[in-house]
This record gives sequence, C-alpha cells and structure tokens, in this order.
Amino acid sequence: MAKILMGPKTWLYPAPALLIGANVDGKPNFMAVAWGGIANSEPPMVAIAIRPNRYTYKGISQNSTFSVNIPSVDLVKETDYCGITSGAKVNKAEACKFNVFYGKLGNAPLIEQCPVNLECKVAHTLELGSHSLFIGRIEETHISEDCLTDGKPDMNKLKPFIFLPEPNYQYLAFGEFIGKAFHIFQELKVKE
Amino acid sequence: MAKILMGPKTWLYPAPALLIGANVDGKPNFMAVAWGGIANSEPPMVAIAIRPNRYTYKGISQNSTFSVNIPSVDLVKETDYCGITSGAKVNKAEACKFNVFYGKLGNAPLIEQCPVNLECKVAHTLELGSHSLFIGRIEETHISEDCLTDGKPDMNKLKPFIFLPEPNYQYLAFGEFIGKAFHIFQELKVKE
Repeated sequence: MAKILMGPKTWLYPAPALLIGANVDGKPNFMAVAWGGIANSEPPMVAIAIRPNRYTYKGISQNSTFSVNIPSVDLVKETDYCGITSGAKVNKAEACKFNVFYGKLGNAPLIEQCPVNLECKVAHTLELGSHSLFIGRIEETHISEDCLTDGKPDMNKLKPFIFLPEPNYQYLAFGEFIGKAFHIFQELKVKE
Repeated sequence: MAKILMGPKTWLYPAPALLIGANVDGKPNFMAVAWGGIANSEPPMVAIAIRPNRYTYKGISQNSTFSVNIPSVDLVKETDYCGITSGAKVNKAEACKFNVFYGKLGNAPLIEQCPVNLECKVAHTLELGSHSLFIGRIEETHISEDCLTDGKPDMNKLKPFIFLPEPNYQYLAFGEFIGKAFHIFQELKVKE
C-alpha cells in the first residue's frame, strides 16, 4: 500500500466532543474541546488542551479547577454553539439552557443535561505552543442515573459523540460493535 | 435528572484505539493504547499514557521516539492482540504479520497496514502515578494513499475505531453523521 507523506498533522482518531467548564470571574462558562483524553488511571487524570486566548482558560487559571462534561448526541447543537462562541461575549449556559450545578470542588461548573461530569483539579500545566495542556486530577464523577445499567455507564443510553476536524468538520455518533476487547484476539490463532 | 456520585473515574468518551510503536533493543514492538489524544495544534503534538512496566515504555525511553498508528476496523483482532500480549514474550509484529517500515526519525517503527502513522519525538514526560504521560511532537505523518479523498483523510476509507472500557470492554466503529461542526449550532436560533 503506497504511503503519502503529509508533514506533521494532528491526525489522531477519534477525537472526543467534550464540554469543558470553568468559572470565569465567578460565573460558569463552557467551551467545546476535542484535544483531550485520559492521562492516567491511578489516580484518574485527564489531559485537556486549551488555547491561552480562550475565555475558559482565564477561569481555569483563576481557580485551578475545571470540569469535563460529556455531551450526548441530543446536545450536538449546544456543543457546536459552545465551540464557536466566546463566553466573553455571551452567556453560553443561558443561551443553551444548561442547568448548571456544582459538586465537590465548589467552583467547577457542571451541566446537568450532560450524562457524565468529571470535576478536575489542575495538577500540571504544560505550555506547548498554541495550546496549554492542563493535566487535571479527577476528583469526582457524576453520572445521570438513567445512563447506568447494572451500576455501569451504558453507551446506548449515554450516546457520546466524536468531533472529526477533517475533511470538513463533522460530528459523528458511535457506531456498531466490532469486537469484544481482550477476547477477539483469539480469532487470530497465533502460535506462540 | 438525578445524578449519582461515582468517585474519581476515567469516564471520558470516546477513547481511541491506537497502536503505539517503539524500537526495543533495536527491534520493533507495538502496544494498544486508549489513554491518549492530541495535545497541541502548532506544533502538532500528542499525549500518550503508558505504564512504566510495559515493554514499549523501555523502547520509548531508549530512543525518545515512538509512533502512533491508527488501526482500521480490519485490524481489530491484531489491535486486541497487541493489547493483551507483551513484546517481552512474543514478536507481535511477526505474529500480526505487520509490514514494518521506518520514516524520518529512523527508529520509530510504523505499520504499513494502518492507514495513518504519526512519527513522534518525545518533548516532555510526566510521571503521573500509574502511567507516564509522553508528550510527543509529531514530526511526520504517513497516510495510505487509498484513504485520501481530494487530498484529505476520508473516514469512510480509514475506518478507525474506539475502545470502550466499560461496561465490558468493547471495540466500536464510528457511526452515523449527526451534524456539521461550526454550522449546526445555527439551529439553536439563540438571540444574542
């Protein structure tokens, strides 16, 4: 298969569609973020990349806390809105009719309509160039009761989605089951 | 909607299914990684979390380089295999029949069968607890020619997938289009 060289590209798939929350000057604000993921298991941590000129950045700097809210497909319009507008100009929580609440940290705003909410305390910050990478220790996890099955998160109820920058900026739902992890490898029938 | 408190959990969705490559003692090895994402846009960087007891960790430490290979759904068995076996015991590249090649960095092994390959040079390492977080600067991107449409990556050809740890360890394909980013927000009809 012929390979084409493209130079350095941010082509890591999939990128999540996340709503990052922070209190800015004491008021809740949310932005859409796709550059992020889990950074550590014990203790649970996330890594979230944010440009320093973003309004949310100001809030994270003020409080050293932020939230990660996982929107469901039902919130795709609101997520998009939070990605294209600035909290410096509009009250996004109000515009999107988010029910905002606070948890353990007291100043990391959480969106009730998002099925999962992670409260994070900044543990490290790396200035990488265009973005600052915030490594946040997850201090508490909130999940909507109706998104649990047998006490565990159920993706069929949660319905998170993906942000796809290229070719032309799309949001995609999760798709079909393609295999059971730590199990489907057996079909390879490798002789060791 | 009632919320349930779950304590600190790594519930960030979706997590990507990635194959991280490194030369260990001069030989190519690959492991499956789900804790990772893009960390910076300019210059392009990734953040990848790896436990220090993993064989791949040794290779990254030796060379300060690694690769991110994006498997397609056709490689779900091989990806699963690379996640459950250790390069200390088996030659995974051989077992999976990977065609391994090298690019610009010379010592970050790449998998020809994976449609996208990122060559990375370690820029920062953070010891976070269970995992080390490698921040890698993307030095070169390779894409299979047949996964491009009009010079851009085409997900319908690339077919990457997702790792879902809970409830019971699954791999999922990407799903249906749910909206155009930076556009669908208009349907909210917010008055500003």
